[in-house]
Amino acid sequence: MIRRIDRIAIEMPPPSDPDPVGAARVQELMGGRFGEMSTFMNYTFQSFNFRNRQGARPFYDLVANIAAEEFGHVELVATAINTMLTGATPVNGGHAPKASLAPLKDVGNPHHFLVGGQGALPQNSLGQPWDGSYVFSSGDLVEDLTHNFFLETGARNGKLKVYEMVEHPAARALTGYLLVRGGVHQVAYARALERLTGADLMKLFPAPRIPTDKIPECRPHIKRGDHLRLYRFSPKDYLELSAVFNGPHPETGEDLVVVDEAPEGAPAYDLPSQPAVFAPDYAPEDIAEIAERLRKKAGLPNEPTGEVANAKRSPAKPRRAAPRKKPAARAKK
Amino acid sequence: MIRRIDRIAIEMPPPSDPDPVGAARVQELMGGRFGEMSTFMNYTFQSFNFRNRQGARPFYDLVANIAAEEFGHVELVATAINTMLTGATPVNGGHAPKASLAPLKDVGNPHHFLVGGQGALPQNSLGQPWDGSYVFSSGDLVEDLTHNFFLETGARNGKLKVYEMVEHPAARALTGYLLVRGGVHQVAYARALERLTGADLMKLFPAPRIPTDKIPECRPHIKRGDHLRLYRFSPKDYLELSAVFNGPHPETGEDLVVVDEAPEGAPAYDLPSQPAVFAPDYAPEDIAEIAERLRKKAGLPNEPTGEVANAKRSPAKPRRAAPRKKPAARAKK
Amino acid sequence: MIRRIDRIAIEMPPPSDPDPVGAARVQELMGGRFGEMSTFMNYTFQSFNFRNRQGARPFYDLVANIAAEEFGHVELVATAINTMLTGATPVNGGHAPKASLAPLKDVGNPHHFLVGGQGALPQNSLGQPWDGSYVFSSGDLVEDLTHNFFLETGARNGKLKVYEMVEHPAARALTGYLLVRGGVHQVAYARALERLTGADLMKLFPAPRIPTDKIPECRPHIKRGDHLRLYRFSPKDYLELSAVFNGPHPETGEDLVVVDEAPEGAPAYDLPSQPAVFAPDYAPEDIAEIAERLRKKAGLPNEPTGEVANAKRSPAKPRRAAPRKKPAARAKK
Amino acid sequence: MIRRIDRIAIEMPPPSDPDPVGAARVQELMGGRFGEMSTFMNYTFQSFNFRNRQGARPFYDLVANIAAEEFGHVELVATAINTMLTGATPVNGGHAPKASLAPLKDVGNPHHFLVGGQGALPQNSLGQPWDGSYVFSSGDLVEDLTHNFFLETGARNGKLKVYEMVEHPAARALTGYLLVRGGVHQVAYARALERLTGADLMKLFPAPRIPTDKIPECRPHIKRGDHLRLYRFSPKDYLELSAVFNGPHPETGEDLVVVDEAPEGAPAYDLPSQPAVFAPDYAPEDIAEIAERLRKKAGLPNEPTGEVANAKRSPAKPRRAAPRKKPAARAKK
Amino acid sequence: MIRRIDRIAIEMPPPSDPDPVGAARVQELMGGRFGEMSTFMNYTFQSFNFRNRQGARPFYDLVANIAAEEFGHVELVATAINTMLTGATPVNGGHAPKASLAPLKDVGNPHHFLVGGQGALPQNSLGQPWDGSYVFSSGDLVEDLTHNFFLETGARNGKLKVYEMVEHPAARALTGYLLVRGGVHQVAYARALERLTGADLMKLFPAPRIPTDKIPECRPHIKRGDHLRLYRFSPKDYLELSAVFNGPHPETGEDLVVVDEAPEGAPAYDLPSQPAVFAPDYAPEDIAEIAERLRKKAGLPNEPTGEVANAKRSPAKPRRAAPRKKPAARAKK
Amino acid sequence: MIRRIDRIAIEMPPPSDPDPVGAARVQELMGGRFGEMSTFMNYTFQSFNFRNRQGARPFYDLVANIAAEEFGHVELVATAINTMLTGATPVNGGHAPKASLAPLKDVGNPHHFLVGGQGALPQNSLGQPWDGSYVFSSGDLVEDLTHNFFLETGARNGKLKVYEMVEHPAARALTGYLLVRGGVHQVAYARALERLTGADLMKLFPAPRIPTDKIPECRPHIKRGDHLRLYRFSPKDYLELSAVFNGPHPETGEDLVVVDEAPEGAPAYDLPSQPAVFAPDYAPEDIAEIAERLRKKAGLPNEPTGEVANAKRSPAKPRRAAPRKKPAARAKK
Repeated sequence: MIRRIDRIAIEMPPPSDPDPVGAARVQELMGGRFGEMSTFMNYTFQSFNFRNRQGARPFYDLVANIAAEEFGHVELVATAINTMLTGATPVNGGHAPKASLAPLKDVGNPHHFLVGGQGALPQNSLGQPWDGSYVFSSGDLVEDLTHNFFLETGARNGKLKVYEMVEHPAARALTGYLLVRGGVHQVAYARALERLTGADLMKLFPAPRIPTDKIPECRPHIKRGDHLRLYRFSPKDYLELSAVFNGPHPETGEDLVVVDEAPEGAPAYDLPSQPAVFAPDYAPEDIAEIAERLRKKAGLPNEPTGEVANAKRSPAKPRRAAPRKKPAARAKK
Repeated sequence: MIRRIDRIAIEMPPPSDPDPVGAARVQELMGGRFGEMSTFMNYTFQSFNFRNRQGARPFYDLVANIAAEEFGHVELVATAINTMLTGATPVNGGHAPKASLAPLKDVGNPHHFLVGGQGALPQNSLGQPWDGSYVFSSGDLVEDLTHNFFLETGARNGKLKVYEMVEHPAARALTGYLLVRGGVHQVAYARALERLTGADLMKLFPAPRIPTDKIPECRPHIKRGDHLRLYRFSPKDYLELSAVFNGPHPETGEDLVVVDEAPEGAPAYDLPSQPAVFAPDYAPEDIAEIAERLRKKAGLPNEPTGEVANAKRSPAKPRRAAPRKKPAARAKK
Repeated sequence: MIRRIDRIAIEMPPPSDPDPVGAARVQELMGGRFGEMSTFMNYTFQSFNFRNRQGARPFYDLVANIAAEEFGHVELVATAINTMLTGATPVNGGHAPKASLAPLKDVGNPHHFLVGGQGALPQNSLGQPWDGSYVFSSGDLVEDLTHNFFLETGARNGKLKVYEMVEHPAARALTGYLLVRGGVHQVAYARALERLTGADLMKLFPAPRIPTDKIPECRPHIKRGDHLRLYRFSPKDYLELSAVFNGPHPETGEDLVVVDEAPEGAPAYDLPSQPAVFAPDYAPEDIAEIAERLRKKAGLPNEPTGEVANAKRSPAKPRRAAPRKKPAARAKK
Repeated sequence: MIRRIDRIAIEMPPPSDPDPVGAARVQELMGGRFGEMSTFMNYTFQSFNFRNRQGARPFYDLVANIAAEEFGHVELVATAINTMLTGATPVNGGHAPKASLAPLKDVGNPHHFLVGGQGALPQNSLGQPWDGSYVFSSGDLVEDLTHNFFLETGARNGKLKVYEMVEHPAARALTGYLLVRGGVHQVAYARALERLTGADLMKLFPAPRIPTDKIPECRPHIKRGDHLRLYRFSPKDYLELSAVFNGPHPETGEDLVVVDEAPEGAPAYDLPSQPAVFAPDYAPEDIAEIAERLRKKAGLPNEPTGEVANAKRSPAKPRRAAPRKKPAARAKK
Repeated sequence: MIRRIDRIAIEMPPPSDPDPVGAARVQELMGGRFGEMSTFMNYTFQSFNFRNRQGARPFYDLVANIAAEEFGHVELVATAINTMLTGATPVNGGHAPKASLAPLKDVGNPHHFLVGGQGALPQNSLGQPWDGSYVFSSGDLVEDLTHNFFLETGARNGKLKVYEMVEHPAARALTGYLLVRGGVHQVAYARALERLTGADLMKLFPAPRIPTDKIPECRPHIKRGDHLRLYRFSPKDYLELSAVFNGPHPETGEDLVVVDEAPEGAPAYDLPSQPAVFAPDYAPEDIAEIAERLRKKAGLPNEPTGEVANAKRSPAKPRRAAPRKKPAARAKK
Repeated sequence: MIRRIDRIAIEMPPPSDPDPVGAARVQELMGGRFGEMSTFMNYTFQSFNFRNRQGARPFYDLVANIAAEEFGHVELVATAINTMLTGATPVNGGHAPKASLAPLKDVGNPHHFLVGGQGALPQNSLGQPWDGSYVFSSGDLVEDLTHNFFLETGARNGKLKVYEMVEHPAARALTGYLLVRGGVHQVAYARALERLTGADLMKLFPAPRIPTDKIPECRPHIKRGDHLRLYRFSPKDYLELSAVFNGPHPETGEDLVVVDEAPEGAPAYDLPSQPAVFAPDYAPEDIAEIAERLRKKAGLPNEPTGEVANAKRSPAKPRRAAPRKKPAARAKK
């Protein structure tokens, strides 16, 4: 089971100039064969299917715990894509019969606008859906770890390339962070293989080459030591990480560290409505009104209780220029 | 982000007679269009992509929180499948040149044996991979909720049919529980739609018909009130569930309840090695030895720290009939 | 546009002993690359996309008109599959917690029971979905006709093999008919190519070899001349078929004939409910009651107006053994 | 069975400025999960598989009859795409070694030019093929109707967005019409569910919001009452539509009406040849000559008998600038 | 470019008792993610795409040359499947209206009989088609080699499991050989990585564990030294293999060897016709007659020139029980 | 089995202006349904599965031998794509944190840059993977040949269109050659069908129309007689081609000729490194250094032994502007 925390792994930049083409490319890190859905789902299934856990506890703990971190990476990729798509359609008065989406006719992934609500999709950079055949779970521990090491290598390649292709601040913040954390996972799986077989995969590092310390968006994370740390993403479980994850980092020689609790993360921006694609509605203020009424009736505080990065004033209530006729179909409960 | 708890949603029966055909069919609840990967991923993406969260906080909280529960359902389906596959291959001496898999040549899903290690796969009952195109995330709140209600309806149909097709205790325990919890989610999405629009979908219940109280494996969960409860799967977030999830249950008239913490769950069985498929290895005791050494070196307790349902004695160390030559390739660190 | 006639192409046998394995194989004629969905959709798209129709009118009429017949073939394959699946589950008392589907755990296509309601699916004999990539519509008339000739050849191969594999009366009635009609379409496309280019593809017949007159289920159709006739499936259009479809039949030397109206067909059996899979419901008699009430209220006749093969008394009202409690959720309008 | 009518649902605008990018996006309404192939195939399979038709006749008639209308919608989407692609390649002298397709190298869906003949394909806006897994046919009437209501809701979302993205007159004529008719189908399925269960889904309308009367291309259809009418697409069958489809329209309160015959429709434009992509040939006039000869030989009228929107003079015979050598390979029959 | 040799890699057993279920499982080694099509296509594409070949010549030669061997492995898998399917249908008199395929209705992969002619298909053990997404060709040499090492590891797992599942002599001969050769390729890629980076992957061997010398069907190949040899599959090229492939074998310590020419291989059995599935025809002797005539006319020898394992008398001319009427459609040239 | 020759079918132009959009479109000839992977794999599988080879030897030899040529076509398509992609990224200093791929964010197939190393992929012009379902191998000789004729017809259509769409010299050289050779294969399969059945498909030629002698890039190949020749791609086998492939060419009337050995071909260009996508590495000169050392140690010549089109000086050693620090992770063996 999981518990969910309504925070994201790191502070992400607020929406700025939209970049729908960039968002279409960042999808590779979401639904590509080497994207974060793949890392999340691979390690999750491997942990579900892990036999003789007690006998191999340090390895089970390693795989199961990294799986948990990967959920946060999937979430972060989504956050970046959503941020980059924000503002791509007109905020006001964009409804049919206006051609509010016409400027996007030949821009990026058409599903971002025609099928989704300017939101992330489980697709790759070609708009192809992520697929369960990307999951490798042979049950053979050495083989699964070999796979995971290779998967992280491919993932690192993808992150580097997306970094070089997409300059939007959200994409850069994303890839800078993922490169550092993916590097840790690469090391973790290499070390696990070393512990089991003696093979010294550490000599492959970094693969692909390009040390992360050359990349400005990686540096804050390196500075804080995140290139050395494996966090324990559980309040009480996965206590044996340190049996595997220890020794020197292959590139820097510094000691690898298990941190006994998950990172605190940061609140996400509450991204504004995009009414042209009905997200979350044609007239978002109606929903806000209903929500207020329901909250009151349930005895909840007047202000929304959720924590978001963009301060007090929720974007849910844009100033309204003119009085609005209430649609008949809305409930009055 | 998530935190992971090394427990499963409910106590599951230990391995008994293996049922690889049944396991192949239970996969529909894993990777089918209406399986648990679909519910998990649909609500997860909808929550990632939710715009104007503050304005629609009770609805965001609802979707995001149910997503968290669904992870546990995916895990439980995997547990059932793994349990049903346990013992399908011979425990001793099954390696090539012996034909240890010959009895399984025409049984169930061949990927369970040829590709996986007698473990769950992200596939449906036909062995087809789960697919990102099963995720619907339009951003339009009313539409997403309509989808979710329909998805839960299809999921309930699938659970009932798997219940009727597969009699293995693990499948029955699984479907009994999922039917009760899926029913709660159906109600939750119907109520959310009612709150937003006034539409009374409650009259559709139960759909498909067959009250869960007729099903013995559902009854303990109903007795404990689980057909009325929405658990909050977060230590601190998703506080506004009660703004939507309230009022009478459509079938029984009892009051719906938000429970302010996640269910405790239960430890999983540590399923035994299946060396014929190399899970986790040809000779699992070697891994256990290495693990012990690593644990000691890291200053961890002698006994594995993980909690499993099957007591003290880990299955990791089956008695060995004869002295074993240590393979040269194993590390000695 | 189309008009729909509530009759099927030929009289089909009533349900007899169920044959779910056979039904799974007959699916190849539905959703296989060379199945009837492919012939229907190929010719339909080619007719939609036909440019310079007036200039090439006889060819346009040919393709568009054969497309219309193919819809009836898709329908007939579905009829056969549904007939073969009828009775595979127990008619009475099969609901959970009973294991009414247990005998089907390892029988045929699991989607027939777990996902569908013992009904045909757009899948092939492996349970793989039909796919738009099976449609070839190059716009080049000679090329499209070459494709169509090849498609019919592959389709004939499939029909012969399904005939030889599946002995259920519905499968035999189906393939007997389709072999005769497919043969006509093969001839039609060969002749069209001959008219356009002079190439004599008639010498390829029959391909695959096995004259249909050797097959008892083909003979009634041959006797009635159906191996020579192209029916015009339109009240007023597609008048120029005879410009292409004429001359001797390549195997028998008899004259090909254009028949100026569509075949009369026959009413379908009203296949009985299969409540174990909720088709059309857990308790079909409730729906029948509602339908009666609605019909009355709308001033329609007391008896259902539809024509079905199985006589007066609809199978909708099986005798009920015991008084039934009306579920609260049913409407009373 | 069907009868085919060589007319399309409404008058469509003639070819004007080509819009290949727009055509690529309109494909979403063809082969997308929520496109017209999906509505057509879903209702068609549900009608094929409908058990106990007599007992549930009004519902069977409803589903079977709407299926028939959807064929015309698929056809109309194809018409729009073909119209938009017309003229995208040069009409004269575009053959190799000329680079007639070079201007289209990076425009729209490359399959429209490289694989098809500037014609519609069973693909979505990403060029992905339509897939039989989009068909839902559970056999459970309440569930199938819930699906259909959701499908129409998703389809409406897609139509609105395509309307806003693509301004070509053919796309606008298409979506204006489909929005009105799709709205009727949404209402029909909601009402059917209400009749069966009492659930009031009418309060969800319109979903997604944006009343069609705000859209100029919808208005003529609304004015003529098409937002209230269910046409009976059969000469003799499906007589019980009125038992379900009645009462007030949820948005306007006007009475819903069953019209006892299908709409008359309109002739399609005979779209001109596009010889650069060999549609229907490199030198379309050759085919026209052959057709003329065949027509004469068969005793058919001199002029093509088909009805097309563009008047007397068929586009099949463009003036020829220079005498043409007859290719040796053409038949002389 | 390639030259093709009409011989297979090793002597394979002649057809014996058919094993269609086994054949369906062996397909995993053909079209599975880790099957031989994957090894062949991965290394082939990597060699096509190899940049700076001169600078990295030994590595280019290694990948390009192993690719060439893999073609022979694909061929061998096909040979095994075809051998196992031979005899599954009746040799005489099996044509419609006889139900010659009825005994196969529920046996193995239905496409082997309904779509193919009892022949191998590019599918896996579930009947799913091989897919270009299985090809990894990043261009990064270290990464591609890591992939290849992992691919060979997964392939070895699959071969071991197929060995243990399928006892048919053809399957055993196949897997015995592939295990030995796959082991060589695993070593080759590990050594290449070692040469480039110093990482010692040799310590992972064998992975999965189970030394091949325990397997009787491997032993003849080991005895002949095939576990140590890399053959050069080119008359003149790929001369630099020895720069990478040298040093001790990780399991035995024996020296690795580059053999300067390709193995001689062996002729394949000419597998007999299976007329029930029209392979190569309904009445194969007709084709043989035509072939004889054509051969004579072309001045070729009277006897077929091809070399096959089964001796002089070709199986093409089974004794005929009764005089045969020549079908009119056969050519007389 | 095959032998591999390190030469390509014809001289190809060296890299010039990169054309990544064109490369994305040329992929249709690689991984499209009618691309060269399809011709290669179709004929290869048909030859693997050919039953009664001795009885039908001339036909077996024809199919098996053409398969061998098709490998060279796949290779040539890859060569063209790789050539067109060369130079699309900056040669110097393009690594992260630089945005070296930013200019390619919306250009061509994103997988060429994000997933591959500016290399060919087994995908079509939409980026969709090639699929085993494109292989048709029914075993029925007449049917397989009909398929092959149709496949070549579709392939010719695709080549003509790619010719007209993509003007890059590599694409033109490619399609000019493939059109001529594809024409020969079309003729070969038509003739084979004629030999077997008497059907005169020769009258369909050319299909699609557009004689190749109008195309400058075809002319050199025609001049040299390549439109008439079937090469024997084997040192010793497939001797009976001439029994089928003879008689007049359908367009020119010239005699068809079997050439008793394979074409000599030409060396490929050694395409330069593209370090921005790590192909073959971030710093290709490191690999070159290692290769040199390994070559020396193995007693190989100092200069690379491979033959490449671009002369003596390998592109592997670009001049270096500044001294380079050797990465610690590189091996020193």
